[in-house]
Amino acid sequence: MIPAAAAETISRVAAALRFDEAARSKLAAGAARSGNLAIPLVEALTSAVAAIDAEAARWVHWGATSQDAIDTGLVLQLRRALARLDHELRAFERSLAEMARAHRRTILTGRSWLQHALPTSLGLKVAGWLDAVHRDRQRLARVAESARVLQLGGAVGTLASLGSAGPAILQALAAELDLARADTTWHALRDRLVEVGCALGMLGGTLGKIARDLSLLLQTDVGELTVSTAHGEGGSSTMPQKKNPVACAVALHAATRAPGLVATLLAAMPQEHERGLGGWHAEWETLPELFRLVAGSLRHLAAMLPKLQVDAPRMTANLGITHGLVMAESVSMELAKVIGRAAAHAKVAAASRQATQEGTSLRQALAADDEVTRALSVETLDRALDPQQYLGSAEAQIDTVLERMDRDG
Amino acid sequence: MIPAAAAETISRVAAALRFDEAARSKLAAGAARSGNLAIPLVEALTSAVAAIDAEAARWVHWGATSQDAIDTGLVLQLRRALARLDHELRAFERSLAEMARAHRRTILTGRSWLQHALPTSLGLKVAGWLDAVHRDRQRLARVAESARVLQLGGAVGTLASLGSAGPAILQALAAELDLARADTTWHALRDRLVEVGCALGMLGGTLGKIARDLSLLLQTDVGELTVSTAHGEGGSSTMPQKKNPVACAVALHAATRAPGLVATLLAAMPQEHERGLGGWHAEWETLPELFRLVAGSLRHLAAMLPKLQVDAPRMTANLGITHGLVMAESVSMELAKVIGRAAAHAKVAAASRQATQEGTSLRQALAADDEVTRALSVETLDRALDPQQYLGSAEAQIDTVLERMDRDG
Amino acid sequence: MIPAAAAETISRVAAALRFDEAARSKLAAGAARSGNLAIPLVEALTSAVAAIDAEAARWVHWGATSQDAIDTGLVLQLRRALARLDHELRAFERSLAEMARAHRRTILTGRSWLQHALPTSLGLKVAGWLDAVHRDRQRLARVAESARVLQLGGAVGTLASLGSAGPAILQALAAELDLARADTTWHALRDRLVEVGCALGMLGGTLGKIARDLSLLLQTDVGELTVSTAHGEGGSSTMPQKKNPVACAVALHAATRAPGLVATLLAAMPQEHERGLGGWHAEWETLPELFRLVAGSLRHLAAMLPKLQVDAPRMTANLGITHGLVMAESVSMELAKVIGRAAAHAKVAAASRQATQEGTSLRQALAADDEVTRALSVETLDRALDPQQYLGSAEAQIDTVLERMDRDG
Amino acid sequence: MIPAAAAETISRVAAALRFDEAARSKLAAGAARSGNLAIPLVEALTSAVAAIDAEAARWVHWGATSQDAIDTGLVLQLRRALARLDHELRAFERSLAEMARAHRRTILTGRSWLQHALPTSLGLKVAGWLDAVHRDRQRLARVAESARVLQLGGAVGTLASLGSAGPAILQALAAELDLARADTTWHALRDRLVEVGCALGMLGGTLGKIARDLSLLLQTDVGELTVSTAHGEGGSSTMPQKKNPVACAVALHAATRAPGLVATLLAAMPQEHERGLGGWHAEWETLPELFRLVAGSLRHLAAMLPKLQVDAPRMTANLGITHGLVMAESVSMELAKVIGRAAAHAKVAAASRQATQEGTSLRQALAADDEVTRALSVETLDRALDPQQYLGSAEAQIDTVLERMDRDG
Repeated sequence: MIPAAAAETISRVAAALRFDEAARSKLAAGAARSGNLAIPLVEALTSAVAAIDAEAARWVHWGATSQDAIDTGLVLQLRRALARLDHELRAFERSLAEMARAHRRTILTGRSWLQHALPTSLGLKVAGWLDAVHRDRQRLARVAESARVLQLGGAVGTLASLGSAGPAILQALAAELDLARADTTWHALRDRLVEVGCALGMLGGTLGKIARDLSLLLQTDVGELTVSTAHGEGGSSTMPQKKNPVACAVALHAATRAPGLVATLLAAMPQEHERGLGGWHAEWETLPELFRLVAGSLRHLAAMLPKLQVDAPRMTANLGITHGLVMAESVSMELAKVIGRAAAHAKVAAASRQATQEGTSLRQALAADDEVTRALSVETLDRALDPQQYLGSAEAQIDTVLERMDRDG
Repeated sequence: MIPAAAAETISRVAAALRFDEAARSKLAAGAARSGNLAIPLVEALTSAVAAIDAEAARWVHWGATSQDAIDTGLVLQLRRALARLDHELRAFERSLAEMARAHRRTILTGRSWLQHALPTSLGLKVAGWLDAVHRDRQRLARVAESARVLQLGGAVGTLASLGSAGPAILQALAAELDLARADTTWHALRDRLVEVGCALGMLGGTLGKIARDLSLLLQTDVGELTVSTAHGEGGSSTMPQKKNPVACAVALHAATRAPGLVATLLAAMPQEHERGLGGWHAEWETLPELFRLVAGSLRHLAAMLPKLQVDAPRMTANLGITHGLVMAESVSMELAKVIGRAAAHAKVAAASRQATQEGTSLRQALAADDEVTRALSVETLDRALDPQQYLGSAEAQIDTVLERMDRDG
Repeated sequence: MIPAAAAETISRVAAALRFDEAARSKLAAGAARSGNLAIPLVEALTSAVAAIDAEAARWVHWGATSQDAIDTGLVLQLRRALARLDHELRAFERSLAEMARAHRRTILTGRSWLQHALPTSLGLKVAGWLDAVHRDRQRLARVAESARVLQLGGAVGTLASLGSAGPAILQALAAELDLARADTTWHALRDRLVEVGCALGMLGGTLGKIARDLSLLLQTDVGELTVSTAHGEGGSSTMPQKKNPVACAVALHAATRAPGLVATLLAAMPQEHERGLGGWHAEWETLPELFRLVAGSLRHLAAMLPKLQVDAPRMTANLGITHGLVMAESVSMELAKVIGRAAAHAKVAAASRQATQEGTSLRQALAADDEVTRALSVETLDRALDPQQYLGSAEAQIDTVLERMDRDG
Repeated sequence: MIPAAAAETISRVAAALRFDEAARSKLAAGAARSGNLAIPLVEALTSAVAAIDAEAARWVHWGATSQDAIDTGLVLQLRRALARLDHELRAFERSLAEMARAHRRTILTGRSWLQHALPTSLGLKVAGWLDAVHRDRQRLARVAESARVLQLGGAVGTLASLGSAGPAILQALAAELDLARADTTWHALRDRLVEVGCALGMLGGTLGKIARDLSLLLQTDVGELTVSTAHGEGGSSTMPQKKNPVACAVALHAATRAPGLVATLLAAMPQEHERGLGGWHAEWETLPELFRLVAGSLRHLAAMLPKLQVDAPRMTANLGITHGLVMAESVSMELAKVIGRAAAHAKVAAASRQATQEGTSLRQALAADDEVTRALSVETLDRALDPQQYLGSAEAQIDTVLERMDRDG
């Protein structure tokens, strides 16, 4: 399409183009005036080429509209950024897997509504996080593939200035940039980019969930986790006991901001005709900001993970706060085998109430009941009150996740 | 796990359970008091079973937590609803394909920034919509598959009350409901549902884009499309000329509301520990509302499509508003073959300015220039000014999309 | 404007108009077809009037557009609803004031980043909530006043069909409905309603903050508050120790959903020309839903407040978790008076480290240091380690808030 | 509180403190590590003071927490920024008032649902914008006053390290900075700042509405407004007819992004205890970004306003697109005076249908009806078909707004 000599000149000039401080200010002013950065950039390139060859200068940016350049540039940046994020997510998964494996049978209290419910294992908690992060990574890989697509349509998407050569040039350019061809120009149909934003938002939410759990376990009042702060992060000179969980704040702040940014991308979708006004522009700062936020959240949490110290004795101690009530369901099940479910439930509920009122343990309340002691031996009762014995399928779930990790490398 | 007789009794009672007005009010009050609907529902079922068999009553809801019931119920509803949506999307795609095919060479003005830019074809415009709707449908099919997953974890996700039988029961229940098993319980890790919400939000955005374009083409001032309103939709008794594009308003209203709902789902992700407070509850009305909104948007647009009347003469007339300036690029290209690109561009730019100032057409301004008439014959100039000849790869793009439709059935 | 007889007939018919099930379905279908509910409603009224007097029927809805009726109806509903909300907020403020007064010197740990920081008083915590709720109530009163405004403009806001009588009729109708006149018609300029939404969203955020604090203090692990659940709210049949803080979940769910709804109202603001398509419609369900959410949040928290039980001994016990480190700043200040600030800080920091490493208390570590014991008498040290003595201006702040309450009644 | 000599030293060092490139990088790294910028900044200041006077260095940042410094700094910045915005809004109001005054009787089509409805005047359209901008400015003035409040509470809001001197120091510092005192510390109760965000969001919405209307009137297809682009803004080298409305795109992009940012501020409100983690941090970039966006939107629109050229003949021409149907209501009213409302409406509706079907004007269809010509003289019919005669209270509304402007200066 473009004469070889002109193309060669343009390429050479483009490769050598540099912008000093003054030139950059001029570009910024040009962007504010013309509505996007590609217009003054193309002008600068055209001037530079024209200084050498006026005829070649007429071929600069031939056939393309400024949005072709900006969108394709974004796609290339996203490809690199998403590859990097995938890499960091894999490392994060490995850290989580290690933690899940190490704490497969580290018992702590399972909490619902922030109330003690039943025992669970730290390994299962972490395996749940890992499973979610893994889904996020797969989702990002999928949307990265969808978004790896060339934009080239000219002013209204017809590629008219390329005449009948349009499809062949599209094919060649896509091959050169290693991008997929889009079946139709997507100047005003932005779902592929929005999908990237949604997947980032979901990862931000998952990381926010992990940070929420960590921050709750790190409470001075709970203390089941602590952060070793060899390097003084999160310290306070006046309050020596404080170790602020900075990474959790970063991740929760990202999870608070990401939804609004995703909403912006969605709200910008109804763009006018072949190329709209306002909607496309609303994406410009939103998608990169979303990426930075979520990637920063990941990096902070990944750096925090190795510094976490698990206080297993504290976990055991906290599990005892309710004096055994957390095991009521377990005892009730055991008792039901002997005296029937309805009777067993009534017994245990009564003992629970009594323990609460008298400030004693469930064990004491049960041991004072002849019918219970007749039905259950001391060993059986002890076993029924032992959190380690009441973890159900926790290990099976952990294994499933870890085996998949091992399999997928 | 549950004795066969008890299970049989519970199933029988459950199948027969009905709630009259008073019972429904009681359920609602119970939900407000206990925090979710499953708790009073299980109480009602338990009472009904207990009236027949007290021992069987103790097995009702055995091992499950209320969230297991609610989440699995939601998954089953979503499966059905998404299948229905897929069906309606296929029909919508067929309508769009028909329209793209019929208007493959119906020329209208391509607009960027709401300004006339270059000619395009209505077929390409519609093919772009179709391509996006197709991507939305594929995306929804994928997330429907991801979200087709059983929830069963008990109070903290360990399935402790099922002892070692947990995995086997999970397997059996998943098979019975034709759902996938989750590797880990997902009470507080909600990405699969949020992903459904995101995909719905994107479809809402695509439909909003289509509605935006339609509403702009339907402007009285543009009139390139009109709606035949045989049945008086959108009419006004006092303003007989008015035909309000109700379907566009519905779709644009949905596209305005959907982003906030998706943001809510994302914002609710950082749920506390094994089961949180507030986050899960924020999903309850949000996801169904999002579904209703987007499905309503689709239904309205699908019903509007067959009523659209294309006013091709008006499209041609509107293309002429700029007196040929819309073809400046085309003429410039043709002229460049003879006098060089730089000279051609200068010539056409001058003629364009002159035409604008004198209120004449580009054709007239060019015809008054000897150099131009020497370079281009009348036939060549006419051809260069003919929008039909300047559609680039529009048809190739339409064909690609339609062939895929034909291939995929 | 309207002949007296016709007006009388219309009023009479309108007052007697009733819609049974079938008529309501017809209205709904008409709304879906015409784009709003006022159109079929006016049609129904017109038919009913026409059945009596065909000439009178032509005056029904004279001069008004459907949006005039819907907007003014909304304004009247909002006025009533906001008055009710104000009433409930006043009662809530009184409850909070009572709690702040009662717990003026109930000491608990002040927490930042969920870490123990310094002692504070429960009274100050509650006074902060009260102060914010009070600001919210004042804000709502202000926006209620702004939004109390008549909508009457006819099809494009000119009131053309009323001829020169427009202003006088506006005046009379505003007086009759006790609404303010708007200087210009506001069919497509919606800031007054959006402002109501923003104020509701802020109240939702304040209530969410209160619920967040309550839920954290209600944690089984913290236990500084408990809920007396005489009526079994939030109970669990299988886990007798559990008392789910349902009101907190309701308030946090509302605080999670409200931001998306406010964003929707803001996003809907750029409405097209005299009356838009999509934007206005996006308000319809959003504003009422926002109101219901936030009012529900308030009602649940207000009902929970009297059931809260303050466990002061537990507060004291939790304050001791760090073995006195929470008082390090206080001791450092006292010591500085004798040995200088730099030396005092170094001493206390060293003692804090030592206490942490050896698992002893700050008091023990300090008592083992001769320089400290020389500088501070036992009484002085005890005083410096007493949280009650280190509350700064907590009481002054509480007093300021309570005195304002007393003053304002 | 602080010895005079130490205070003097600290002030002197603080005033002289400068940060070169390397020092700034160190601050940024410190902020990432410690969780906010105040911590490394205070460290740097303390080091600088300590180099001169170790004892004085211990008094640096005395009593304050880092959030005190950051929040108060933000309040001071907001005060200046909001004053500047108020200034620019006043100028914008003056421009709008001038335009409303000049085009008080410039007739154009009033549009609802993007359909021609009835005539209106450009002056009324602009008066509506002006009225809304005025409300926004008043609202911003009010929230600026509310947010002009000192933050000083120390680690948990009690100002404990200031002992009993807290209130007096608060008073003195507030006076020195010319800020109001808060009744209670607001570290975790953020409604005042969120309120600023909401008011900015509403202004963004109003400006978006103005930009929406402008962009629709600037459509090549409508052409009722054009932008004189003396300086080549929004031009296109290949498409000489194009003048992109860059300011509209900027304002619409801001109106698309602002709602998500406001939602973020609201979502961040439920902050934990005395000072939270994540919520406060989510405000840091959000509020300034919101300010920049909306202020940029205003500046672009304000710069565009004087370049707008009103094409009154085109407005008249467009009003005729429906061949008089836009005046049907007006004629119907006139006819009703003679033949009754029901008969008049039936007549005009029939004539409208006939005109549409036969492609003639409403005038022609009416003139062909004997009953009409008997009822209305040619002069009366002409008058009823003249848009200038059918503007209702448009001028009265414009006057009300302009008189208020004149009154308020």
